[in-house]
Formats: sequence, structure tokens, C-alpha cells
Amino acid sequence: MNKRIITLTTDFGTADHFVGVMKGVILGIQANAQIVDISHDVQAYDIPDGAFTIAQAYKYFPKKTVHVVVVDPGVGSTRRPLLAEAAGQYFVAPDNGVLSMIFGAESTKVRHITNERYFLHPVSRTFHGRDVFSPVAAHLAAGVTPAQFGKRIEDHLRLSFFEPKHSSKHTWTGAILKVDRFGNLLTNFHIDRFPLVRTRPFEVTAGLKTIQRLALTFTEGAPGELFVVVGSSGYLEVACNQGSATDTLGCGAGSPVELTIY
Amino acid sequence: MNKRIITLTTDFGTADHFVGVMKGVILGIQANAQIVDISHDVQAYDIPDGAFTIAQAYKYFPKKTVHVVVVDPGVGSTRRPLLAEAAGQYFVAPDNGVLSMIFGAESTKVRHITNERYFLHPVSRTFHGRDVFSPVAAHLAAGVTPAQFGKRIEDHLRLSFFEPKHSSKHTWTGAILKVDRFGNLLTNFHIDRFPLVRTRPFEVTAGLKTIQRLALTFTEGAPGELFVVVGSSGYLEVACNQGSATDTLGCGAGSPVELTIY
Amino acid sequence: MNKRIITLTTDFGTADHFVGVMKGVILGIQANAQIVDISHDVQAYDIPDGAFTIAQAYKYFPKKTVHVVVVDPGVGSTRRPLLAEAAGQYFVAPDNGVLSMIFGAESTKVRHITNERYFLHPVSRTFHGRDVFSPVAAHLAAGVTPAQFGKRIEDHLRLSFFEPKHSSKHTWTGAILKVDRFGNLLTNFHIDRFPLVRTRPFEVTAGLKTIQRLALTFTEGAPGELFVVVGSSGYLEVACNQGSATDTLGCGAGSPVELTIY
Repeated sequence: MNKRIITLTTDFGTADHFVGVMKGVILGIQANAQIVDISHDVQAYDIPDGAFTIAQAYKYFPKKTVHVVVVDPGVGSTRRPLLAEAAGQYFVAPDNGVLSMIFGAESTKVRHITNERYFLHPVSRTFHGRDVFSPVAAHLAAGVTPAQFGKRIEDHLRLSFFEPKHSSKHTWTGAILKVDRFGNLLTNFHIDRFPLVRTRPFEVTAGLKTIQRLALTFTEGAPGELFVVVGSSGYLEVACNQGSATDTLGCGAGSPVELTIY
Repeated sequence: MNKRIITLTTDFGTADHFVGVMKGVILGIQANAQIVDISHDVQAYDIPDGAFTIAQAYKYFPKKTVHVVVVDPGVGSTRRPLLAEAAGQYFVAPDNGVLSMIFGAESTKVRHITNERYFLHPVSRTFHGRDVFSPVAAHLAAGVTPAQFGKRIEDHLRLSFFEPKHSSKHTWTGAILKVDRFGNLLTNFHIDRFPLVRTRPFEVTAGLKTIQRLALTFTEGAPGELFVVVGSSGYLEVACNQGSATDTLGCGAGSPVELTIY
Repeated sequence: MNKRIITLTTDFGTADHFVGVMKGVILGIQANAQIVDISHDVQAYDIPDGAFTIAQAYKYFPKKTVHVVVVDPGVGSTRRPLLAEAAGQYFVAPDNGVLSMIFGAESTKVRHITNERYFLHPVSRTFHGRDVFSPVAAHLAAGVTPAQFGKRIEDHLRLSFFEPKHSSKHTWTGAILKVDRFGNLLTNFHIDRFPLVRTRPFEVTAGLKTIQRLALTFTEGAPGELFVVVGSSGYLEVACNQGSATDTLGCGAGSPVELTIY
């Protein structure tokens, strides 16, 4: 029997005890769980960053994986804890939009987790990663069925930050979703929606620069040259050969980007 | 048969090979160990930070877990390696106070690890995480009994940094134990010792500010307002709605805090 | 049956989804793999740093461990993917020198990975950690034999950055390989090649300072005093009691160091 995988995606960082505590809670309930860190360095309180991170990672995991996503600035308030089923996997997260990109990509069943029998008691007002999300994930991995956690809902929060808007005849206005480790700017223009960038002249405008070159790899162009590349997630990225696009352009997560296709 | 859990708490960071080496040593001795990182970002050489981190995390782990704690500025000197048993779990650490909060909270049996048969040879003077603590933890997880590692001792080091002092009739002087990822200031005032803050008027003084408000969650108050909250570990925390208390107050780990209860 | 260990050493950092994606790919192919992070904080694009990190760690892992090393500035270009066998273990990495210190230390069989049957398709131009190195490692851990991945080669890249040069009668010119978490400067002078530093007068010159003292531990000397210590990897390190040698000397990775033995 293979171990059930539980992944963790949080904004807790790794300098505090928070992540270790979550792992202890999970292993105390389900000693055979295989815990996998996706990232604990989601920007603090940054729901779009968390939404992007889990959305890029989940599709590579096996069926029945349980993903715990805790970016939860509203912890202790009235926001609901959710259990979502999508693509044969499970997602346990607060109802604050952090699963929006999964709701947008997959047919999803969502439940409001209400059965306190699966919580760690007493439930604090400030650390539901420990008291709600981790124990629910562990019980789910141990075989408790989704219906036992709570009723289906349809009114869970969906954020639309990751969709560009059509702003004029040939132009769409989008945004930087993320700056990666190497300073590349990941936009919200996905190649599946904008396949014409591969075959037509185009312009991407970010910061004060306009870029017209589509490269195949990060090593093309002259040193310092800016170009666009279709990244490994399918989103257009603005990159800089042997440099950092974020430093060169002064753009970061949330900055506007325009795409014009002629 | 469940795998035995070995947790790691160090100040080694994650940019060097140190942590990977420790994991290799453990798995070379006990291939079935389940290694769990608690944190490797304890502040360098900071024994109180390490003591706080393991003390908040251990209680959530199952019985028989082996916790390795290596914050060890005196490595290679005469400080002793310890094996402690507390709360049905095991702790392997240097005798420098890093287990002080566990000694304060639990009935503990402590042994001086002297049996070099369980070390990795030759034992270096500079990396006992590799040569002493990891192999001892792996052998312990593999079934070697505590008594085989060395004799009981009673004179292990206990630090008292985590206890506030009564400084005048209504006032106690404490300290900031830790600044967490979100800029919250964790004090050493525990709600179990100071339950009256829930029911009586009080003042917490940190930096140049005095705070009188007790909040239930981190989302209360006006943006930028400072308040006190009973954190998930039971310690009073100074927090700032939508902001960083450490930045607002200019306080960090070790800064003094006063609590007056009227 | 013990689980097969797969280690990961990358420059991907931990704030992006890259590492989580690699883990998902591995577990999707080989659910019983035991994944161990060595480091994801290799300096971005820094091949010598990656080469040093894996070379210090691998020797502590059990036979048959599969090590995935992805520091890959040339991803998508013509550099080849390699499968190396050394010391009873496996190494999967780009042919850019990142395995140079292993090639220098061990008798190694190297193959050019060409069998696309073991890749994740479609293979991107920008993320071979996901599409090539992780699936190859997982298939190898699942029992595919090395010969099935591709043919033996002899012309793989070897870099020599880690060997000091004899520069005058008593003097060798070397370099700082790495600055560790504590600010210690790891040189490329290995005690096995320069054992006389233990018994003869010597001088190490780094930055504007000359150091003549060999210490046994990091706690010797006056506060702020610089000294040389034989580090846990066998390389001479320049350290500073209760301080940071890198800050004191203004030296970092790549800085020159001279050793004179009288």
C-alpha cells in the first residue's frame, strides 16, 4: 500500500515553528502520511501568490494527493474552511480565493468544512493551519470521506486576478503574477489563450520598455537583452539574458503588462 | 510497523550542505527513518531561539519521536552531548541550554552521551551535527535503548531567559522571545501564568508604546493599530493589524517588555 | 524493502513552485521514493557552488541513492543531460561541470541520457528539472538500468576551479569555494594535499590579512580574532571567533587566497 501524500503550501516561512507543528499534527493522526513541502515562502498574506503556486504544482502530483494551502490573513474571522475535490485530488484551504486558479481550471466540488470532530481542540483563533487544516488533511488521508467533513457549497470565493482584460482592439491588459528566483516576470498571458504570439508580430509592454522578441530559451540574445519566453507553466514570461528582468524593468508582482498582437 | 520519526531543528540554514549531510548519515544508519524538518533557520548561534522553536513544536509529535536540536556555538569544546527523555519523546542536543524550555515544562530524564560506538568516526571538532547528534538519533530510532548511550546526569544547563520577573507590585518585566514571520512579537508572558489579562485592565509596554487592548484575532482594530493577542502557543503577542509590530515598535528578540495588571 | 532515496540539489530557491513540481513528478512515477532535499539555495546559476554542495553531501548517503543536481543556466541549449555512476550511487545532472568535484574524487561511469521514453512530454525548453532530470531519477529508482538511458561517454565537462595552483616555491594560489551560513570562508586547500599546515609554520593570505594560527575549534582565540581551521569537509577554512570572516575580510566565493608553508 502506498503512503498517502499530503503537500503543504503556506506563507509561514521556515524560521518559525509553525510548519514543524503542522507536520507533527499530521503525523500524530496519520503516521504513514508522506508530507511534501511545496513552498512555505509564499509572500506573507499574498493570496494571489499562494493561488499561483499551488495551481502550478498540483497537476504533477498523483491522484488522491491532499494539498493543504494556508495563506490565511483572515484566520479567526468568519471566512470558511474549504475542502475541494478537483482532478482526482483534494485541497484543504481557507475560503479566501487561494484556490481560485484551480476553480478556474478544473471542475470542482467544494465543501464547507464544519465537522469539528476532525479539528484539533481547543481550536485557536490564530493558527488554523494547526487546528483545522492539518488535522482535516490527515483524517482525509486516513480514509475519512469528503462528505463527512461538511456540506457542498457553490458560493465559495473566486478571484479573477489571473485573467487579462481586453482593453482595445488588438490589446489586452494583464499583470505580473509572480517574480521567480531568477528575476523572470511571469505574466498572466497564457499561451493557450494567446497562441498568436508564436506566429504574429507582437509587443509586450512592461515598465517603460516594449519587447517584441520571442525566444525559445533563457540563453538567447545579447547579455542584458530583454525578451519574452513561453515559460514552463505556459505563461508568457519577460526575461533578461544573464540578468534580472525585475531589476531591469523595476516591475514586480501586480505590475501591469500590456500585450498587443498585430 | 510505522517508521520512526526524527525531527531536525538547527541554525545551519539551507544554503550549505550541512543539513543534507545530516540526513544522509541518518538514512545510512536507519533507512526507514522518517525525517521531518522543523526549522534550519534558527538565528545563527541563538540558543534561546532554538529553545523556543523546539519547545513549541515537540508537543504535537507522536510518542517516541526523536528530536535533534543543533544550535551549538560551543561545538568541539567541552560542552556535553545530551540525550533527554520527556513526554514520551527523545531529544538529542548539546548541553548549552537549548532544551531549557522542555526541562522547564516536562519531567525529564537526562543522560550524558558518552558511548562513542554510536558516533561517526573520526569525530570532527567542528560538526557534531554530523558526527554525534545525527548518528545517535538514528541508532535510537533503530532501537538502541537510552541507557546504552551514557549515564544519567542532573547538572545539565538550564537557562531561565523565558521566565518574566516580578519587578513591582503589579508589574512584571519580561522579554520578546521571538519575532515571527509576520512581524508579531512573542513575549515570554504565558496566559497560564497571567490569566488575569483576559478579565482585568492591563498595560503592555514595549518600545515607546503602551498597549491596553486584548484582541481575539489578528484582523481586529484599525489598520496600523497595535494590540495584544494570546498567540497559538499561549504566549501574549504584540501584533499590528495589517502591519508589522516589530517595525512599528523597533523591538526585536531580547527587547524588554513590561506587563502591569490592575 | 527499503525505499529508494532521491536527493535534490538545485538553485531554484523555495519561494517558487519549481521544487514542488519536481517532487510531484517523482512521486507520480515512483510513489515509494524517499525524497531528501540537500539544498535548493545554491546561488542562482552558480555551477561551482552546486558542485561543492553535492560533493560534500553524497558520500554520507547509502549505496544506490539517486542524486538529482539541477544548476542549469544553459537549459534548453545543446548541453547534454548526464547520468553518472560513482561510489555505488547515481547522479543525474546537466553536462556543465556541476559534477566536476565528483569526477575528480571518484572513478565514474558517465552516460549521455538520450532515451526520451523516460522524459516527461512535451519536453519544455526551460524546465528540464521537471521534464528530464526528475523523471529519469524516478525511473532509475524504480529499477530501470543505467544502460537503458543512453550510451557511455568520456568527453563530459570537467571544471578545475577547485584545485589550487603552485605559484612559487613555497606558495600555492587558491580560492574561496564557499561562504557558509556563519561567515566562515571555505578555501580549496584540502588537508589531505597540504598536511604540513598541521606541523609547520604557514601563512594564509586572504583580503588584506595574513593568518598564521591553526585552531582546532571555532571557539578559540580572542573575540574577533581570525584563524584557520580544518573544516568538517577537510578544507582549510578562515574563521573569526564570535564573528564573520567574510565581513571582516571583505572576501567571498571566488576571492583568491594564498597559502605559504615554510
